[in-house]
Amino acid sequence: MKPIKTVTTILGRELPDYIAGYGEVKPFQGAFSNERMKTRKAVQLTSVPPGERKVLTSLDEAFDRLKIKDGMTISFHHHLRNGDHVLNMVVEALAKRGIKDLTIAASSIFPVHAPLVEHIKSGVVTGVVANYMLGPVPEAISRGELKKPARMQTHGGRSRAIESGDLHIDVAFIAAPTADTYGNINGVYGKSACGTLGYAVSDAEYADITVAITDNLVAFPACPIEISQVFVDYVVPVESIGDPKGIVSGTTKITKDPVALIIAQMAAEVIKASGLVKDEMSFQTGAGGTSLAVAAELKRLMKREGVVGSFASGGITGYLVEMLEEGLFRTLLDVQCFDLAAIESYRNNVQHQFMSASMYGNPHTKGAVVNNLDIMILGATEIDIEFNVNVTTGSNGVIMGGSGGHSDTAAGSKLAIVVTNLTKARLPMIKAKVTTITTPGENIDVVVTERGIAVNPRRVDLLEKLSKTKLPLMTIEELKTLAEKITGVPKGIKTSEKIVAVVEYRDGSVIDVVRMV
Amino acid sequence: MKPIKTVTTILGRELPDYIAGYGEVKPFQGAFSNERMKTRKAVQLTSVPPGERKVLTSLDEAFDRLKIKDGMTISFHHHLRNGDHVLNMVVEALAKRGIKDLTIAASSIFPVHAPLVEHIKSGVVTGVVANYMLGPVPEAISRGELKKPARMQTHGGRSRAIESGDLHIDVAFIAAPTADTYGNINGVYGKSACGTLGYAVSDAEYADITVAITDNLVAFPACPIEISQVFVDYVVPVESIGDPKGIVSGTTKITKDPVALIIAQMAAEVIKASGLVKDEMSFQTGAGGTSLAVAAELKRLMKREGVVGSFASGGITGYLVEMLEEGLFRTLLDVQCFDLAAIESYRNNVQHQFMSASMYGNPHTKGAVVNNLDIMILGATEIDIEFNVNVTTGSNGVIMGGSGGHSDTAAGSKLAIVVTNLTKARLPMIKAKVTTITTPGENIDVVVTERGIAVNPRRVDLLEKLSKTKLPLMTIEELKTLAEKITGVPKGIKTSEKIVAVVEYRDGSVIDVVRMV
Repeated sequence: MKPIKTVTTILGRELPDYIAGYGEVKPFQGAFSNERMKTRKAVQLTSVPPGERKVLTSLDEAFDRLKIKDGMTISFHHHLRNGDHVLNMVVEALAKRGIKDLTIAASSIFPVHAPLVEHIKSGVVTGVVANYMLGPVPEAISRGELKKPARMQTHGGRSRAIESGDLHIDVAFIAAPTADTYGNINGVYGKSACGTLGYAVSDAEYADITVAITDNLVAFPACPIEISQVFVDYVVPVESIGDPKGIVSGTTKITKDPVALIIAQMAAEVIKASGLVKDEMSFQTGAGGTSLAVAAELKRLMKREGVVGSFASGGITGYLVEMLEEGLFRTLLDVQCFDLAAIESYRNNVQHQFMSASMYGNPHTKGAVVNNLDIMILGATEIDIEFNVNVTTGSNGVIMGGSGGHSDTAAGSKLAIVVTNLTKARLPMIKAKVTTITTPGENIDVVVTERGIAVNPRRVDLLEKLSKTKLPLMTIEELKTLAEKITGVPKGIKTSEKIVAVVEYRDGSVIDVVRMV
Repeated sequence: MKPIKTVTTILGRELPDYIAGYGEVKPFQGAFSNERMKTRKAVQLTSVPPGERKVLTSLDEAFDRLKIKDGMTISFHHHLRNGDHVLNMVVEALAKRGIKDLTIAASSIFPVHAPLVEHIKSGVVTGVVANYMLGPVPEAISRGELKKPARMQTHGGRSRAIESGDLHIDVAFIAAPTADTYGNINGVYGKSACGTLGYAVSDAEYADITVAITDNLVAFPACPIEISQVFVDYVVPVESIGDPKGIVSGTTKITKDPVALIIAQMAAEVIKASGLVKDEMSFQTGAGGTSLAVAAELKRLMKREGVVGSFASGGITGYLVEMLEEGLFRTLLDVQCFDLAAIESYRNNVQHQFMSASMYGNPHTKGAVVNNLDIMILGATEIDIEFNVNVTTGSNGVIMGGSGGHSDTAAGSKLAIVVTNLTKARLPMIKAKVTTITTPGENIDVVVTERGIAVNPRRVDLLEKLSKTKLPLMTIEELKTLAEKITGVPKGIKTSEKIVAVVEYRDGSVIDVVRMV
């Protein structure tokens, strides 16, 4: 073995050039440094001739056929969110069979997946790949309990990794709210309906074996078909794939917090001043209260100006559905439904369209949807004076999130706005250095806080436009000073040298690592 | 070069083991001899970063960028049928640029493509790959005017060949009735609307470069999206991609010919006696008058028995739309719309679903739709006493058709019925040997003529069921004798040794060749 050297990302983070349990480290060299000639990998498959049945009687029969071995990578999607039963069910059954050393490639991990912690301790699970993690699992990972460093990706980066062969999946388990007897799947019908299945598409298409697990087995052919039979080897009916209460919130609500409402108003003024509010505009926001408040402000603005946008995208909430139905956007592009209103709209309105995670954000396709985004509203756990954003770890260094679509949309959109309180829980949100870099500052255009707005100096054009408004512009350093006046300068956190997670940028380079706290 | 040997298919056809301009010959070894572990090939692509435009000003700009070279393979789909302008437009422009030695991989070729004949003569085009050919082009090929033998495939076999790498496409030109500025495509809107674009999907996904040619460029994002932006490199707006009169017939009509109606009635009785008319049944038929008459008989039967089928599939006609709307089938699976009623239904009714050619008939996926077909109504130009069917050449040996979905549906369906007059134009339809084998007899279950019905001896079960009816059963030899009594024994046609076309079975093996007449 050659000695490990230190490499430095373009953002100045020092990383080892090789990480045991992860492999060679390609240091991040800029958001668009790794483009052009790319490969979608070849796929081996077992063809299904006429007369063969795909429906198995139980998970056990599936495992008998699948020949799952120690060391394999099995994948899951997160559309059932904190109501998901499938990941726990599968890992539990494999643990009983004495399987060890599994890597769990789940698009996201939620508190409901707490039983994974025991499987991590016992060595059944030694690797985790995810775009977002919340709850006991990332806490255990942060404590150093997982054998290999977790691999954290972005939504677009995950589909890139799967489609390029950079993340090989031995078996993909697709939680299917509806599946027919030949493996056609949709997410809009059944007791565990969750809406679109955008994050599951690359898994189904590129895994060696794809298994649909469903609690709503229907006769052939399912209607609609979101994931086609041509990618599905087996269908396993089970009693329940999820808890509807955990799958969707009833409705998404706009914040009533006065500070958040001020931030939303200011963000809307930034958007207006940017000149992007015009016909054919496009927009994306998260489902958080402040983000939705920005949507509400934008809605008023669009109505007042008589503007019809081209699309809103991302995880879709009832609030965006309302904007579609009121004619403020021609269409929605939906990778994930956040609430019942979104599921219903997606089921019934052709203007509410499906997109896969790859179409959403994979940088190595012939153009992702994020590339056409005008305005993106983003959250942050920390921001540094280079505009780098952390949404991966808390200020205590513990993993409590991840990029999801953060880096993808920031890279693609014309105007990426971070909305955040200036301080939270007596901590400043703007720091000299963020604990973990999730999204590079080059793709963040503006930071809006209740006390002031900082424009990325790269955006001279935007700074000029905003200078003509009454918005409280300041430099990011001034914002930092302002925050620190309130909270004091926070102490740095102490970490060991041990790397517990590798943070991959969407192109597969390493933008940062998380060390054990 | 090693000497050329003779190999023999399982049906007894003698073929050279190597054909110049085609390559090595894998002789046909049975419909299901070539299954199980298969590969979907890797694809090289050029990723598109934010800010890049895909819309080009003209075909000329496209050609400047594409660097099309002598010897390349360019592909087209046939949804615009005899109204297609795109194939002629592209080849004409490439000819003007002095390009030579092109292979045209078009899913089908129609009389409208007559200008290709001149390009074949001049050496601009030296190869043709198609599933179906009608008109001056196959006539010229039959005369030996094409430099390399044409490669004739099935609809499912073509997508298999493209997806496996067996047919490499350098540039796919997608005639797009609607395309947005980022390459999302649908076939349901625009002045050249043709309905689904099922045959174009493999081309778009697996070609090195994919170009959408459209006469209805719309703002991003198109709605609906049938072929995604992630597969499309460029969008070229042109004045017209097709002539609506040639794209769709106004309505499809059931035959009024009394002989054909008798055949249809008898076919319906065969279907009834087979026991397949029950809930969840599935059905496919062509758009010919006799085939539609069978559908009409089946409809009466289904209504009388109160049966609700699962799906009807294939090229969809208004007649099948009526059956969907009357509740006789739960859903339609549509690879191609044959008339305006089908286009409208597909546009408006979610039960009328899209399928790609690969999902329709590719034998090397995890299960094609044809595998779930119960009843298939097929045509024939000739049938031999082994039940082998010719739909490729006329009795004069000239190419005037091709498998299309014939071999795919015959292989997949539980009951494949050939309906045909016993004699046509003073020629017997049943012969000792067919001029060209398109579909192997092992997959044909029954031949229904106005004078008698022959059941394939392999189908002992079916023979037993039909014996209990009053249907005029006889052996295929008896049918042949009956036909020859009317027409006399036809003289064999004389061909030269020169191979003008290679007939590939759906798995890529060679089932027959066509020799120059």
